Amino acid sequence: MANIAVVLSGCGYLDGAEIYESVITLLALDSNDAKYQCFAPDINLVQVVNHISGEPVPGASRNVLLESARLARGDIKELAELNPDEFDALIFPGGFGAAKNLSTFAVDGVDMKILPQVERVAKAFAEAGKPAGYVCIAPTMIPHIYGAGVKCTIGDNRDVAGAIESMGGQHVNCAVDDVVVDEERKVVSTPAYMLASRISEAAAGIEKLVRQILTWVD
Amino acid sequence: MANIAVVLSGCGYLDGAEIYESVITLLALDSNDAKYQCFAPDINLVQVVNHISGEPVPGASRNVLLESARLARGDIKELAELNPDEFDALIFPGGFGAAKNLSTFAVDGVDMKILPQVERVAKAFAEAGKPAGYVCIAPTMIPHIYGAGVKCTIGDNRDVAGAIESMGGQHVNCAVDDVVVDEERKVVSTPAYMLASRISEAAAGIEKLVRQILTWVD
Repeated sequence: MANIAVVLSGCGYLDGAEIYESVITLLALDSNDAKYQCFAPDINLVQVVNHISGEPVPGASRNVLLESARLARGDIKELAELNPDEFDALIFPGGFGAAKNLSTFAVDGVDMKILPQVERVAKAFAEAGKPAGYVCIAPTMIPHIYGAGVKCTIGDNRDVAGAIESMGGQHVNCAVDDVVVDEERKVVSTPAYMLASRISEAAAGIEKLVRQILTWVD
Repeated sequence: MANIAVVLSGCGYLDGAEIYESVITLLALDSNDAKYQCFAPDINLVQVVNHISGEPVPGASRNVLLESARLARGDIKELAELNPDEFDALIFPGGFGAAKNLSTFAVDGVDMKILPQVERVAKAFAEAGKPAGYVCIAPTMIPHIYGAGVKCTIGDNRDVAGAIESMGGQHVNCAVDDVVVDEERKVVSTPAYMLASRISEAAAGIEKLVRQILTWVD
């Protein structure tokens, strides 16, 4: 039975993991009889955002691991405990959390840095030739993990696609219900809420991403 | 196109709406080409619970509407604005939020009260003969809304089933992937995380619940 590590970045698309993308990922894994374990870093959210106004909440503080635990029904481990030897593949759902808490893309753009414990894990899967999936805005991390020429997608947003190209990636435009696959590196990405206007559109792409990963694992 | 009101109670199963049940409900509605609008009451959570320890967080305060907005990607309205004339059916996902914030079942058991704005809405759908679906622990509200003899389920938990019977409901044991239907009153319920050990089990029951509601609406 395939065993997949899923890295969350909070709970809520404006300051954490995109909830629909995360849940659809877990549902697709379980529906395909794969096991999974959720992980998140034990750090504070960069900011807490009011999900009605879209504005940061001054003075508010929440922890990425604790908020991610909501999404995992409490069944979550610290990212620092993730041993890549124990898993067959890795998935990063999207949401601004991936570009605020796991990396600094939302603030630094092409000068982004990846949280060291995220980089350690992602590079370990890449170097072991184990598959990985990146959803929504998370593929902005792909060039740093896989190096120049890696194929990936965030949909068709020109600014973000341009940033990926500037960082050495090979951005491929992609429909919301589809995926972009780098067969050599075993990394797959899908636009999800970079493009989705309906939850079923995001689901179609994420389900393809999960099936691609499980095809590689089998 | 069917238009369904979904009432949320926060974001996280220990103090709010059960996230998987809520997302699966929205995905099932959208996949069946139904429209939906999420609502939540503008009140504080009864308690904020740490989703790793399971313990309440002393002094913490969060708002049900704002937390529910995370689950709705910001597309949410105050429950007080819900006009039943504008919708074809109503769904309550579960989670302790349904028994803490929308009603007092978690504290008061058979002496539970339902939040007046929840009761107003639920009774309006019942009295108009419009379908409704109740998931997980939310069916504990059904006897108060529909009166004596109404058929419903929370799975097979003897204590909660007994409470439903004491409040006048007719509890029917039900498997996790199935639903209990009261055809006369057009109310359907499913156990979801009262029984589910896997997300795909909860999905099977909730997808049936949504299809039953849409069958009534069509």
